[in-house]
Amino acid sequence: MTRFMDVHHGAHGVTEDQLRQAMKAEAELEQEEGVRFQHVWADPESGTVYCLTEGPSADAVQRVHERSGGFRPDEIHPVPLSL
Amino acid sequence: MTRFMDVHHGAHGVTEDQLRQAMKAEAELEQEEGVRFQHVWADPESGTVYCLTEGPSADAVQRVHERSGGFRPDEIHPVPLSL
Repeated sequence: MTRFMDVHHGAHGVTEDQLRQAMKAEAELEQEEGVRFQHVWADPESGTVYCLTEGPSADAVQRVHERSGGFRPDEIHPVPLSL
Repeated sequence: MTRFMDVHHGAHGVTEDQLRQAMKAEAELEQEEGVRFQHVWADPESGTVYCLTEGPSADAVQRVHERSGGFRPDEIHPVPLSL
C-alpha cells in the first residue's frame, strides 16, 4: 500500500459536518477500492483541504473521491517518507 | 495554539535523513518559538513536503523553518478543522 496526501483547493467555507459526511461516504467505498482515509485537515477560509490516505494507487484515491460525490482533489502525491 | 499545514515545493530528492536533521534543528527552537512539529510527509520525486505543526502564528512557523536552516515553506495554511 502507498500513503498519499491529496490537496483540494476551492473548498471555501467547508464545514466540519460536510467533511464528516464526505468521509462517511468515502468509508463505504474503502472495502471495494482498498483506500483508507487516515486524516483530513481543512482551512475553510482559504478553501484548502488535505487528505491523508493509504491505497493501492493515486487513481483509486481519485475514484473514491469521485464515486462518493466528494470534492475532487486538485493534487495527489504519494508521500513515501513520513516522520 | 493553531494547527498549521505548511507545504514545500522543490525539495526534489529529499531524504529521510535530511528531514530527520531538519526536524532535530527545529525541535531545538520549539521552546523559544512555541512551535511544535507534529508530523512531516514527503515525496522526494515531486519534491513536495508537508509539515503539520502547532504554534502561535504562521510567522512563528516560518521563523522556525528559517532559523533552523531548513527548507523555507512555500505555503502555510491554518487548518482549524481536523478529522
